[in-house]
Amino acid sequence: MVIASTLAAGSAGTVETRHLDLPDPVTLDCGRELRGVRVAYETYGTLSPARDNAILVCHALSGDAHAAGRSADRPAASTRDGFAAEHRDGALGWWDGMIGPGKAFDTDRYFVISTNLLGGCRGTTGPSSTDPATGAPYGSTFPVITVSDMVRTQRAFLDALGIGRLAAVAGGSLGGMQALEWAVRYPDQVDSIVVIASTHALHPQGVAWNAIAREAITRDPAWRGGDYYGTGSAPDAGMGVARMVGHVTYLSAPALDTKFGRRLQFADDLRYTLTEPEFAVESYLRHQADAFVTRFDANTYLTLSRALTYFDLARGHDSLDRALAAVTARTLLIAFTSDWLYPPAASQEIDAALRALGKPTELHVIDAPYGHDCFLLEEERQTPIVRRFLAGG
Amino acid sequence: MVIASTLAAGSAGTVETRHLDLPDPVTLDCGRELRGVRVAYETYGTLSPARDNAILVCHALSGDAHAAGRSADRPAASTRDGFAAEHRDGALGWWDGMIGPGKAFDTDRYFVISTNLLGGCRGTTGPSSTDPATGAPYGSTFPVITVSDMVRTQRAFLDALGIGRLAAVAGGSLGGMQALEWAVRYPDQVDSIVVIASTHALHPQGVAWNAIAREAITRDPAWRGGDYYGTGSAPDAGMGVARMVGHVTYLSAPALDTKFGRRLQFADDLRYTLTEPEFAVESYLRHQADAFVTRFDANTYLTLSRALTYFDLARGHDSLDRALAAVTARTLLIAFTSDWLYPPAASQEIDAALRALGKPTELHVIDAPYGHDCFLLEEERQTPIVRRFLAGG
Repeated sequence: MVIASTLAAGSAGTVETRHLDLPDPVTLDCGRELRGVRVAYETYGTLSPARDNAILVCHALSGDAHAAGRSADRPAASTRDGFAAEHRDGALGWWDGMIGPGKAFDTDRYFVISTNLLGGCRGTTGPSSTDPATGAPYGSTFPVITVSDMVRTQRAFLDALGIGRLAAVAGGSLGGMQALEWAVRYPDQVDSIVVIASTHALHPQGVAWNAIAREAITRDPAWRGGDYYGTGSAPDAGMGVARMVGHVTYLSAPALDTKFGRRLQFADDLRYTLTEPEFAVESYLRHQADAFVTRFDANTYLTLSRALTYFDLARGHDSLDRALAAVTARTLLIAFTSDWLYPPAASQEIDAALRALGKPTELHVIDAPYGHDCFLLEEERQTPIVRRFLAGG
Repeated sequence: MVIASTLAAGSAGTVETRHLDLPDPVTLDCGRELRGVRVAYETYGTLSPARDNAILVCHALSGDAHAAGRSADRPAASTRDGFAAEHRDGALGWWDGMIGPGKAFDTDRYFVISTNLLGGCRGTTGPSSTDPATGAPYGSTFPVITVSDMVRTQRAFLDALGIGRLAAVAGGSLGGMQALEWAVRYPDQVDSIVVIASTHALHPQGVAWNAIAREAITRDPAWRGGDYYGTGSAPDAGMGVARMVGHVTYLSAPALDTKFGRRLQFADDLRYTLTEPEFAVESYLRHQADAFVTRFDANTYLTLSRALTYFDLARGHDSLDRALAAVTARTLLIAFTSDWLYPPAASQEIDAALRALGKPTELHVIDAPYGHDCFLLEEERQTPIVRRFLAGG
């Protein structure tokens, strides 16, 4: 087939985040129920009369429902991560390079839906939301949730929208976990999944990084066991440290060499300071931390970090093979050579397991230097792969 | 030559940490002077009548003067790091496997000297020491020091001991930086250097990890700008996070896979907790953090972390080649394939630079899986290399 040029690819336009209240409680893996769940979402493109062109895109830890186009109500604060995100138009969605007319997820053809995750802090019910039972924020009483819970919430949301089947579920990182969970949990309702820079189960070093990030937050006295809402302070200091750990794990060591080297930030000579940034990379990390805490809730960080650590597709199925046995969706896996947080090995394992089961699967390992951030940076190289895959081969 | 069997290698015996007060102030790179500097040290073996068999061993970030033998006064608290350190006899020195009769640094032949670093918290003058000018602990007034300052202090200490030339200076990690600095700073006073798992300049990702560790400490309100002595509390929460970051960077991802995998710590099922360790690796990190804060001072952590980040052998010399031009010592470099914090590439750069200058150098890259911790764990494989090198070839 002929791949349309992406040169003429356009914008999804000005979009507004909308909200939908689920009619029924969501039952969670932990055994609890959440009542009055609200879901923040955006849509791009038009639902076909046959309702067969819907694609759900799932965001990663720090994203939100604003995946594409220009935000009508939030002109400055981008949830885009990755190198040079700070220099980007803040109103653009975090996956604007991939979603729009003529783009990878082509809104001339597909009806693309993006929701803020359950547990989030950008419109969907999460720890900072008001508990209808008490009229106060959940805080420490918000349940510990799983990727399954997120997907169950998305299913209920799509039911409310009147959408049964999905042409595709797509996402990177934690978003890719959701796509995998969809294929396993609702095999007859998903035609295809696009799983980018993700895994069926985070490796122990990734578990460790996430544990450290959570420790940094929960050891901050301002966290107050999770009940900091209304106190006038928040565990910004700890979440800043968590964010710094995240940033280093999202990048590769060679990318840090290239971008910063050992360049000093402010002077040619050492300033002999323990507390101020001296090297450019130190200054970068502090800047990232400071920017992040203005837009993100610490309890949501804890909640999503725990969920992605728990995620293990094989759990309850004895093995990955058995977990994937019921899958009917076509699977596209993309991984990046320099991604050491979600290394290609995991995608290779998923691909091999699906292949052994005779399921349609394809894996592309892209040679790129930016680490895990590649999934947001290497849009140009992912675009023809995703377009061809969605077109059916 | 024949390498003596290490099977019969013995213990350096019961040793006591002694202290020496330097007669003169130490002038520091930052321009300040430190008066009344005390140095904690231990020695193993006997100084030859010709005073030509002295070896200085230099510890890394969390070590101390107790490098070998059994401590007379500290029977429980080991400063040994690395895998399974918690199961080791706490009275043994951190490099006991390498120092003793018949061992790599053979105390039947050499007079081995180990000092606690300037800035330390185990007997040598550091931030927690009393400032003679005020009678109170230095705290925030302790100067920011460098690896050169540490080495200058060691030089003054050896002068006071009446030792001019050193047969060798040896150390791993930050200890290796000191060995390199000795060879550059005092070329006519060092016969050889043994530089293990070290570098001429920490790479940007290592700079980043150290910045995060320091941020974790300085963002802890209990740090109080460095003046927490006598307040009844200390930034243990933040230093615990710093230590966790350290531990993950000291190990390799495959070593974490092998040791922990995704094994749950306490139960077969998830417990749905944000704050308690769930995976074995989470529990391990918390245990390491809790143990570390009982024995280490946070300001010393900041001080040594900053010094090793600053260290750059080429600084002030235009290039590594020029920095090494004056070196006369024979150089032994050892690196480990899985060490991603101090990767073999840096040792290769030093080796190549020395070789290009026609200096005697040898590099051994040991294929071992434990990451940076290898320098404390792979003693058996390092022993014949070090013995042969010290014997003169």
